Amino acid sequence: MAIKFYDYAPAPSPRKARIVLAEKGIEHETVPIDMRKGEQLSPEFRKVNPNCTIPALVLEDGTALFDNLGIASWAEAVKPEPSLTGKTATEKGLVMSWVAKCDMHGGIAFMEAYRNSHPKMAGRAIPGKDNYEQIPELAERGFARLAAFLDDLNAHLEGREWIAVEQFSLADIWAFTILDVTPWIKAAPGEQHPNILRWQAAINERPSAKL
Amino acid sequence: MAIKFYDYAPAPSPRKARIVLAEKGIEHETVPIDMRKGEQLSPEFRKVNPNCTIPALVLEDGTALFDNLGIASWAEAVKPEPSLTGKTATEKGLVMSWVAKCDMHGGIAFMEAYRNSHPKMAGRAIPGKDNYEQIPELAERGFARLAAFLDDLNAHLEGREWIAVEQFSLADIWAFTILDVTPWIKAAPGEQHPNILRWQAAINERPSAKL
Repeated sequence: MAIKFYDYAPAPSPRKARIVLAEKGIEHETVPIDMRKGEQLSPEFRKVNPNCTIPALVLEDGTALFDNLGIASWAEAVKPEPSLTGKTATEKGLVMSWVAKCDMHGGIAFMEAYRNSHPKMAGRAIPGKDNYEQIPELAERGFARLAAFLDDLNAHLEGREWIAVEQFSLADIWAFTILDVTPWIKAAPGEQHPNILRWQAAINERPSAKL
Repeated sequence: MAIKFYDYAPAPSPRKARIVLAEKGIEHETVPIDMRKGEQLSPEFRKVNPNCTIPALVLEDGTALFDNLGIASWAEAVKPEPSLTGKTATEKGLVMSWVAKCDMHGGIAFMEAYRNSHPKMAGRAIPGKDNYEQIPELAERGFARLAAFLDDLNAHLEGREWIAVEQFSLADIWAFTILDVTPWIKAAPGEQHPNILRWQAAINERPSAKL
């Protein structure tokens, strides 16, 4: 049985796993789940991931991995090269520190802003099986945090090619996939963030980042 | 120079790294940062971690790791045994899937409930250098999500000794440290969660979990 990757092309979350699989050249069969049609909430998909989130990766033995961090850790173990988590112990520590930071201050801030403000997300303020109403004040806070993250990241990238270490890593993937959808909420980096724009352009050159 | 671990004993976040270091027997010097006195916001600590969060681990070469995920990844690489992230690639994927799940549905839900409702946390709804006001609706949502997480986790632990794989792992540490402070907000697991209570008791037997 082939490895099955449950994906939805426009969404930032499965794109993280998609880039990881492409960078490592891990063969898989893609199963598209149309989130516009709510297919992630269908009885069929609930059997794959009872929490109804995408991505999910089902391995040859039937084990389901249902989070980007899990999928990336599995991928790094089955196919260590090219390394996406750093080479030395110190590098591994730095990459994962930045993954956590990009998630907390970038990913979650975006999710708070987008899901609590966009009309399409009414009643769906959190991904997953349970429905939560939007909280307008949380959207506002998300926008403020996301703006602060862009400023911090731009300052951090001054004189640096990549976010965490001297090679492309999970930290870059985590931040890039989120920043790439910030135009959805008119919160994209701009000319005041020249280091981010340069870093985004470099990632857009990678075949793995093609949409 | 010894490895320096910036810690605050009562807080759930640095306790994760503290348990990891203890399980692996990694020698370090503990530098206590008194969060009741706001020492994490002091100019001295800002030099260690500009984002003002604890834990932080400063390695012998001066590299600072400022997140539990980073510290745990470093620790796993410098001292692979006892493994806390699983042995096979599949196990590593499962452990990190559960770490992400415990963080999103347990840790962040607790943080939303506690920091947005407790009078001591007024103006400090998010850890870190920036101040954010409390959002009462977010506290309410956090309580609901935390209750759902306890029910899900209790069901998941039926017939299982540990959360992710057949050995104690980061997933257990991530969930345990959060559940151990749920009494702060009167949201602790109770007799309706027998599997959680049994699992908590087993972790409390471990020397690494002693407060």
